[in-house]
Amino acid sequence: MIGIDWGTSRLRAYRMAPDGTVLGQREAQRGILTVLPGGFPDTLRAVTGDWIAEGETSIVMSGMVGSRQGWLEAPYLPCPAGLDGLAGAAILVPFPDAALSLLPGLSCRDRHGVPEVMRGEETQMLGAAPDRGEVTVCLPGSHSKWAQMLDGRVLGFATYLTGEAFAALSAHTILARMMDASAPHHAGGFARGLARARQGGGLLHHLFGLRALALFEEMQEEEAASYLSGLLIGHEVAAALEDGVAPPILLIGAETLTRHYATALDAFGIPHRTAGPDAAARGLWRVAERLP
Amino acid sequence: MIGIDWGTSRLRAYRMAPDGTVLGQREAQRGILTVLPGGFPDTLRAVTGDWIAEGETSIVMSGMVGSRQGWLEAPYLPCPAGLDGLAGAAILVPFPDAALSLLPGLSCRDRHGVPEVMRGEETQMLGAAPDRGEVTVCLPGSHSKWAQMLDGRVLGFATYLTGEAFAALSAHTILARMMDASAPHHAGGFARGLARARQGGGLLHHLFGLRALALFEEMQEEEAASYLSGLLIGHEVAAALEDGVAPPILLIGAETLTRHYATALDAFGIPHRTAGPDAAARGLWRVAERLP
Repeated sequence: MIGIDWGTSRLRAYRMAPDGTVLGQREAQRGILTVLPGGFPDTLRAVTGDWIAEGETSIVMSGMVGSRQGWLEAPYLPCPAGLDGLAGAAILVPFPDAALSLLPGLSCRDRHGVPEVMRGEETQMLGAAPDRGEVTVCLPGSHSKWAQMLDGRVLGFATYLTGEAFAALSAHTILARMMDASAPHHAGGFARGLARARQGGGLLHHLFGLRALALFEEMQEEEAASYLSGLLIGHEVAAALEDGVAPPILLIGAETLTRHYATALDAFGIPHRTAGPDAAARGLWRVAERLP
Repeated sequence: MIGIDWGTSRLRAYRMAPDGTVLGQREAQRGILTVLPGGFPDTLRAVTGDWIAEGETSIVMSGMVGSRQGWLEAPYLPCPAGLDGLAGAAILVPFPDAALSLLPGLSCRDRHGVPEVMRGEETQMLGAAPDRGEVTVCLPGSHSKWAQMLDGRVLGFATYLTGEAFAALSAHTILARMMDASAPHHAGGFARGLARARQGGGLLHHLFGLRALALFEEMQEEEAASYLSGLLIGHEVAAALEDGVAPPILLIGAETLTRHYATALDAFGIPHRTAGPDAAARGLWRVAERLP
């Protein structure tokens, strides 16, 4: 089978054996925002046409490809939901070359009734999380997700605009003058930002404090961006803990970013482990096993 | 005398009688960022030359004009500080046309040792606050200031990057797609944002919630920017209260913005009043009275 994790800015394709072994994988800068209307079938062919020609007859897709801006809109599946739920809610997409299934994303509401959504992360979570027991899954990113899982089902989750806030604040406020957002990671600055996040005063106050530290020459330019990153990630972790997420935390994501989150969790004294790569491939394969 | 409140983007000039009555006032879009090196004397002449020709011999300036990017750098005066302290720390600036005094800004450190600075707001606070008793002063803005004052002295203060965060987040994140940051104020959206800020979960989570509300058609485009404004101001007020600021609050600033902050304080049940206009003029005059 072929599994496709098709997001806003990127497409990842996996060819898998019947037992789930990943036989091949590809990444293309063909996120849904780069695809013109009606262009999804040809984009899929361009990335996976040779695998189909070699005999693959079944494709499963997850991610923003199922959003309003994607190929077809797959309505969100409300939590709690697991692999069986995703498989049951999959949409069969007209595609002459193979059987093409599109998975929904998940939705829930926080205790105050405000909605939450994800597309793609659910497949990674269900690929990486254990089938039994409680675990909190954290997927760091532009829109970081923290999900409570029990016995292989997502009970609920919360999203934090951390990555996007970093990009906007580091480039479009007075902080831009004192930092290079693309500077190498600075462990000392990151740790200072994490420590600051654990103090009172609120994020908006801490953002100005970064500016004032620089004015007083108590913040070097090379550590400022990492300080801001640590500050924002620290506020995210603090809010998630205040929201009641329980350890252990299972981190899923790109290696560098999950390592930074691991450092942040260590600073808070929270036990954690990091999932192996290809959680998405495993999730796609596990859902495919359950398709009707 | 002539009082000048010279900020980053704007210059306000006041001509005052010996008893402090404002005889005339002007505003020019000649903030320090618009002045070329060496251009400060001529800019001041352009705005106040006729008043000087008519016999004014004394000028007092406050604001970013005393920063490293201004006319001359006036080192920050540490808190606690009052009118006498500002007058004593004034710098005499070489200017052939009149006696020209430049006031310092104030600095302090929060309980964790992180520095805080202001330039110009101290003069407004000392112009508007009572000479006796305790009061918390709030000056809303790009960098909102909350100061504790006792018997006419600023004991300490905290800054929140609220206005700048609004500008950056509303224009440079996914939120930009769902709002018009220049839309008219929407009282209902603002109130919803304030209420959300009082719930747990943290600002970064609340920012994504705004996006999700729009996806579920539970947030209209015309209320989204006011919701974001209410959310950020609400987080600022909540953090200030958590930081221990005590009512009553004295609001100082532009009429529309102080009205929004008054609404926010009402939502939190915090008593407040709003200072009259020309706090800066009054502060400049009161310091001038005390110059050596």
